[in-house]
Amino acid sequence: MAGNSFGVLFRITTWGESHGKAVGVTIDGCPAGIGLDEEDIQKELNRRRPGLFPGASPRREADKVEILSGIFEGKTTGTPLALVVANVDIDSGPYEEIREVFRPGQGDFTYHRKYGIRDHRGGGRASARETLSRVAAGAVAGKILAPLGIEIIGFSRAIGDVEIPEEALEQLSTERVGANYLSCPHEETAKKMEEALARAREAGDTLGGVVEIRVRGCPPGLGEPVFDKIDADFAGALMGIGSVKGVEVGSGFAASRLRGSQANDQMSAQGFISNHAGGILAGITNGEEIVLRVACKPIPSIARPQRTRDTGGREVDLTLGGRHDVCALPRIVPVCEAMVKLVLADHLLRQRALAWQ
Amino acid sequence: MAGNSFGVLFRITTWGESHGKAVGVTIDGCPAGIGLDEEDIQKELNRRRPGLFPGASPRREADKVEILSGIFEGKTTGTPLALVVANVDIDSGPYEEIREVFRPGQGDFTYHRKYGIRDHRGGGRASARETLSRVAAGAVAGKILAPLGIEIIGFSRAIGDVEIPEEALEQLSTERVGANYLSCPHEETAKKMEEALARAREAGDTLGGVVEIRVRGCPPGLGEPVFDKIDADFAGALMGIGSVKGVEVGSGFAASRLRGSQANDQMSAQGFISNHAGGILAGITNGEEIVLRVACKPIPSIARPQRTRDTGGREVDLTLGGRHDVCALPRIVPVCEAMVKLVLADHLLRQRALAWQ
Amino acid sequence: MAGNSFGVLFRITTWGESHGKAVGVTIDGCPAGIGLDEEDIQKELNRRRPGLFPGASPRREADKVEILSGIFEGKTTGTPLALVVANVDIDSGPYEEIREVFRPGQGDFTYHRKYGIRDHRGGGRASARETLSRVAAGAVAGKILAPLGIEIIGFSRAIGDVEIPEEALEQLSTERVGANYLSCPHEETAKKMEEALARAREAGDTLGGVVEIRVRGCPPGLGEPVFDKIDADFAGALMGIGSVKGVEVGSGFAASRLRGSQANDQMSAQGFISNHAGGILAGITNGEEIVLRVACKPIPSIARPQRTRDTGGREVDLTLGGRHDVCALPRIVPVCEAMVKLVLADHLLRQRALAWQ
Amino acid sequence: MAGNSFGVLFRITTWGESHGKAVGVTIDGCPAGIGLDEEDIQKELNRRRPGLFPGASPRREADKVEILSGIFEGKTTGTPLALVVANVDIDSGPYEEIREVFRPGQGDFTYHRKYGIRDHRGGGRASARETLSRVAAGAVAGKILAPLGIEIIGFSRAIGDVEIPEEALEQLSTERVGANYLSCPHEETAKKMEEALARAREAGDTLGGVVEIRVRGCPPGLGEPVFDKIDADFAGALMGIGSVKGVEVGSGFAASRLRGSQANDQMSAQGFISNHAGGILAGITNGEEIVLRVACKPIPSIARPQRTRDTGGREVDLTLGGRHDVCALPRIVPVCEAMVKLVLADHLLRQRALAWQ
Repeated sequence: MAGNSFGVLFRITTWGESHGKAVGVTIDGCPAGIGLDEEDIQKELNRRRPGLFPGASPRREADKVEILSGIFEGKTTGTPLALVVANVDIDSGPYEEIREVFRPGQGDFTYHRKYGIRDHRGGGRASARETLSRVAAGAVAGKILAPLGIEIIGFSRAIGDVEIPEEALEQLSTERVGANYLSCPHEETAKKMEEALARAREAGDTLGGVVEIRVRGCPPGLGEPVFDKIDADFAGALMGIGSVKGVEVGSGFAASRLRGSQANDQMSAQGFISNHAGGILAGITNGEEIVLRVACKPIPSIARPQRTRDTGGREVDLTLGGRHDVCALPRIVPVCEAMVKLVLADHLLRQRALAWQ
Repeated sequence: MAGNSFGVLFRITTWGESHGKAVGVTIDGCPAGIGLDEEDIQKELNRRRPGLFPGASPRREADKVEILSGIFEGKTTGTPLALVVANVDIDSGPYEEIREVFRPGQGDFTYHRKYGIRDHRGGGRASARETLSRVAAGAVAGKILAPLGIEIIGFSRAIGDVEIPEEALEQLSTERVGANYLSCPHEETAKKMEEALARAREAGDTLGGVVEIRVRGCPPGLGEPVFDKIDADFAGALMGIGSVKGVEVGSGFAASRLRGSQANDQMSAQGFISNHAGGILAGITNGEEIVLRVACKPIPSIARPQRTRDTGGREVDLTLGGRHDVCALPRIVPVCEAMVKLVLADHLLRQRALAWQ
Repeated sequence: MAGNSFGVLFRITTWGESHGKAVGVTIDGCPAGIGLDEEDIQKELNRRRPGLFPGASPRREADKVEILSGIFEGKTTGTPLALVVANVDIDSGPYEEIREVFRPGQGDFTYHRKYGIRDHRGGGRASARETLSRVAAGAVAGKILAPLGIEIIGFSRAIGDVEIPEEALEQLSTERVGANYLSCPHEETAKKMEEALARAREAGDTLGGVVEIRVRGCPPGLGEPVFDKIDADFAGALMGIGSVKGVEVGSGFAASRLRGSQANDQMSAQGFISNHAGGILAGITNGEEIVLRVACKPIPSIARPQRTRDTGGREVDLTLGGRHDVCALPRIVPVCEAMVKLVLADHLLRQRALAWQ
Repeated sequence: MAGNSFGVLFRITTWGESHGKAVGVTIDGCPAGIGLDEEDIQKELNRRRPGLFPGASPRREADKVEILSGIFEGKTTGTPLALVVANVDIDSGPYEEIREVFRPGQGDFTYHRKYGIRDHRGGGRASARETLSRVAAGAVAGKILAPLGIEIIGFSRAIGDVEIPEEALEQLSTERVGANYLSCPHEETAKKMEEALARAREAGDTLGGVVEIRVRGCPPGLGEPVFDKIDADFAGALMGIGSVKGVEVGSGFAASRLRGSQANDQMSAQGFISNHAGGILAGITNGEEIVLRVACKPIPSIARPQRTRDTGGREVDLTLGGRHDVCALPRIVPVCEAMVKLVLADHLLRQRALAWQ
């Protein structure tokens, strides 16, 4: 077990490199009897496909998923699901220049130091392509959540320093998020984000941002203190996505500047009066909307020369060829959603096993 | 397994309630042959003791740790270590008023909903007293890290809105952190923090803050992508501490507002030129200083009336009796350090098992 | 995690050495709301106590269990249960002679080679005293099984070459097993066993035997193919008990000599016509009686001189002092039962989590 | 996690049904830098192929393995290995008759009761075809063991009641095992086995037998008491293979009839004088040859009418069509070897992580 499995009861194991033969995921612990077909998964994969973005990464994969096991006559059988997506559009040629050179901000240096061997082609295992497996597995997890009325909405909360104002989120819905390619549910902000992106692109530079994920309809009682608290699991799941450098729940870092009388969510007979906690108290869901925010650093592959080292320790000036995305945020949104779904499905099963009666 | 174990190879299991007979931890996977005695653990426990703070919680526990197994003639034997701290100063009387009432901002409501039964005395399992077990286990983990030259320094980066300026951290050392009861390594800031605390206390209110943890001397190569990345494990470990609402690594949320050309840490022949990454690239340590920040909400137990509910669904106005801390930060610092040590010890062992040769 | 935890959802972690301060177990994953007190556990511990046997080991421990956490007003709270039994009657003096000498048939040599350090006093962690923790945890697991009508009956099937004939087991019951100190439910065989034991004792020698465990009332559907089949888990659990050298299910080794037409359990409308399978098909319970048999080697501590080595590699003639049991079987019976209960409780919870609906 | 993963550090997850699209396995935790190609795996798969046996199962699969990830320029990279074998020769037609009928001795009934849905085609997940994944993973584990001089030899010790006499095993070697299609290293016994098989075939019946596995060159110190003892892990691993009903180590069940003075392996300065323990003491390898025996029931698919039930509870007389193997033993041998290799590789890594220095 070298870190490629996630979850306790709804447990996935992912595999695959950017320029290997395929990427995939095995899901062990999916309950039997759930209706599932490839289209259920495909539509989620399509949301994270490269090339949907003006000026985006030119790789054009069909990203066609195939279910190799665990299904019989349209339903899960309780046996492991194996999902595979072939790598079709592979041209490793452009990566030859980084075979012995460490790209700044990427995993090149650390993979080299850790394993002593590195598949440099397309970033190998550290490529964003790995997240295909997560999104595919998340789609299956979603089939457990949806019938319970649990809805997950992820969106671009900020790109660079352009952020959706809090009050503009009152009308948040999946439809509004899907209205533009930036996954930004506020049109006015989306326009400013586009302008910021245009400026960065002109400068040969890239932008990061903040993804926000909200979960509606989650029942109270999910989470297993003291180490598998659901906020701890969300934090671990989200921080483990490439480029993520911060995670917060509810009021998050802002809560550290509030007083107790402000931060506490008081209750009336009708329920909680506020939601600074972001739906989680003492690591257990309280039935309120779950609110998570994820800070993403800018894409490290920029069109400007950078100083770095090669495997022999020599200093090198590196200018990456090829076209690259200016901002990964819209493609990170479905990955964040997938991880949130995986955490929720796992905790639902765990709670079911131990539920007090 | 209901969430009370942590770690893969250096694995701890904690137990105990605030007003039960004792709290404790079992450590399975501590290598044999490590010199260890109770004093090694005791000195860490003393750092998180209540009552060190002017006006602090009046509970006066000796918090005396006892090692019940796993040691022979002053060395670990490779068998499990059982550490126990008796609960001595227990007076559950003052908690009788919350037997059927949910305190705002605490786990009372969610424990009730999850388990259907709740040990209300002193907060039961959700009490901060549970962290004794973490600190004790962290002290043992520290015995693995210290001989390798790995140093962990945690401190109060901010209390309320009073924050140590970045430049004041150049002289950071354990000695400076220990120079005052606030664990603030910058005297000027410490004074302002005291003033802020005094104002909050007068208002019957409480403050939160930001804990920062730095790890020096960590070798490159620790972390197991793609799910057990070391930043993911740090995030999960830290978010699982009571009152934590956010975690960031390196530049963290600020990185989301940088451009790629700013956020990338370029390299010279001597090594990394900057450290926006906070010592972690693609989930693996890169040999630079590890920088982690943790947002803590204010203590929820305030001296002001609050509206809440009881177990029967009735609205209640609750004013908590007793004296309470105004700010938990200095006591959260050693808990954060302990979790960081546990993650590091676990990943060191994991890396040792799989190291390329 | 160095092997001292057992179970996935109902998960125990044991600790303690023979001559340390105490032995104990933490149980994580026990559902909330189960009535439990120390007496429930104590009565199981009493069944494995030393000194119940004529001429048995002279150690006289009260073996008094204490529950330190996880209970509130007589019920489990869903938080970890910590159970501790103090080691009271400790005299390590007689063990001084084996500080540097490896007793044949014991773990002395392998612990020395594995860990490089060994607590020789009373066998340290490898002592049978460790099984106290298992029996205590098994008693808690039993509280989950009993209300479901699941009954576990273990007994001495054979001691040395004296075996209960199959037909004598038709009247098997807990009462019959408890009728003599050998845990042999057939009086006629019990007498022959006593004679065999007397002969062995006179010769300064020891006997092994076969423990059989039957489970009645187990529902169909427990077991998680393809690796956590319930028979695989039973086999692992039972083989891990000290002195066990073989495990079989249903017809076991005899099944290897049957033809398919004999070994298959055919079905009528009323159910299975025979039970060669021992209640398990393809790793999943089928609702029939579960039948397990466990081969135990004789106690290695004999009253005769033996040739062995010391830690310096020198050949030594060793004659162990002190009085020892002639046969451990009656005390292994409750340990086997405990492991079977732990496997069943764990699989019940796992099946509950994933049950098809 | 529903039971389809095995191992702690060298951890495999298998998937696939007999008549699905493919079967496969993911290996997480294989160290980086190990030379590996498909041929290494293929040669092990070929040993368990159907149709090698006169009168054997007519399914003719190429069983061609493909490595989809984790390899770069002929070496493992430390990332997960995904191995896949397509199911090519699928004709589910003959299985239509058992869609609603439970074959005696198979998993049909228990899968139906457990999951409420069953892929009846070819036995679905309960098919022996699942063991392809184990053998493939075992081949990779073998690449870790071989350079350390660890040799695993499995063979047919008995078929039906024809058993190789102990003394005939002195010349045991891989070459002798491979000399006939029965994997029987003693020619004289092999002839008697063939005769027994011929008689069973004529009677439309099947035979079981005993597989023995020996491990030579294993270093002392492997095994993690008290629950992950290496004998416990062997027992669980082997009992989890389809058709296995018993496992024993060293003298096994015979040890239960020995006296202590006989069963103890005394030591001289040169090492152990005997090996009743089968190379394992207190759950840890002692450096001697490891000896394991596995009892396999006869193949349940016989050419004779049998009484059984259908899913509606109705009694049915079932005569299975098609040709079937008379004895699975030669094909179970490489599966047993694979499981033994997986246990050893896992424990080697675990020992490496925690080794005393």
